[in-house]
Amino acid sequence: MKALEQKILNEGTVLGSDILKVGSFLNQQIDVDFLLDMCNEINRIYAGEEITKILTVEASGIAIAIAAAVVMHKNVIFAKKSKTSNVTGPVYGAKVHSFTHGTDNYITVPKDYINSNDKVLIIDDFLANGEALRGLIDIAEQAGAKIVGCTCAIEKGFQGGGDELRKKGYRIESLAIIDKMEPGNIEFRH
Amino acid sequence: MKALEQKILNEGTVLGSDILKVGSFLNQQIDVDFLLDMCNEINRIYAGEEITKILTVEASGIAIAIAAAVVMHKNVIFAKKSKTSNVTGPVYGAKVHSFTHGTDNYITVPKDYINSNDKVLIIDDFLANGEALRGLIDIAEQAGAKIVGCTCAIEKGFQGGGDELRKKGYRIESLAIIDKMEPGNIEFRH
Repeated sequence: MKALEQKILNEGTVLGSDILKVGSFLNQQIDVDFLLDMCNEINRIYAGEEITKILTVEASGIAIAIAAAVVMHKNVIFAKKSKTSNVTGPVYGAKVHSFTHGTDNYITVPKDYINSNDKVLIIDDFLANGEALRGLIDIAEQAGAKIVGCTCAIEKGFQGGGDELRKKGYRIESLAIIDKMEPGNIEFRH
Repeated sequence: MKALEQKILNEGTVLGSDILKVGSFLNQQIDVDFLLDMCNEINRIYAGEEITKILTVEASGIAIAIAAAVVMHKNVIFAKKSKTSNVTGPVYGAKVHSFTHGTDNYITVPKDYINSNDKVLIIDDFLANGEALRGLIDIAEQAGAKIVGCTCAIEKGFQGGGDELRKKGYRIESLAIIDKMEPGNIEFRH
């Protein structure tokens, strides 16, 4: 999505070798009209596909998932994060490793909220190593749901998570894929 | 908002004396059409008021704030939560005590994202003791911004936070106010 690439070039800041800060429009401050532009693009990508629910993980995925849900008129399910696997109640769960923080999180969705009749679109803001997507895919598959596809706003292609999942046959559509970045230089995949 | 009261009666579960679970439509699973109904009501309440930004706090406030932003065409700022006050960079911050977890969180907004020209509408999902709202009000006032009002979906009136803030002169508009609840019984303020 050309407009997103331009926005990243104009407003993003690269820190070190793998951190891209886009707090000015996607993370901590949301440019709502631009968010809707991104979600209209997601809607266009999956036009014609049957989708029953949008699945994301708290906290940073919620904004784009809700805006996509408004555009696509689908309900949203959030996987909740916790520090321990010690979650009570009937839930589907998956372990998600955070390379940024060097910690493991457990993400869960109550079994009541997803089942084998669902056709889910997984949405998140960033795709790097693919840990969060793998956890969400795992949860959807435990429920027997069909995974229509996974869409992230920004994929850091050089971290490999997206391509690994594509090799496994999942439909991974990112709105912008960065193949190389360093302070002052960002190169996109086309 | 009558439809919200009815939804709480139909789908909410009261646990003990002060926990209301509404995960089926507001927290962990979002009924997007109902979320938009709530946000149209928020838009109606503040019709005629000049608002430059919507301010909320991660994570549970994000969904309703984003949907309200879409309806009202305003940008959103999230205050970020952290466990320590040791936050780097130029930020406005406030301490927020969690009665549920018995812990203190620090919430912050970068100074770049809010200033004395802003007229902010503060939005959150729940209002109980008012700690989160007080923190967000504090941040907006540090920035010199005008606070147009604060709106929460569900106020647990019996916990007093909303009324304390009303006494101080803030405009607090909740879509549903619960004055009394116990398992099997919920009474609303009218």
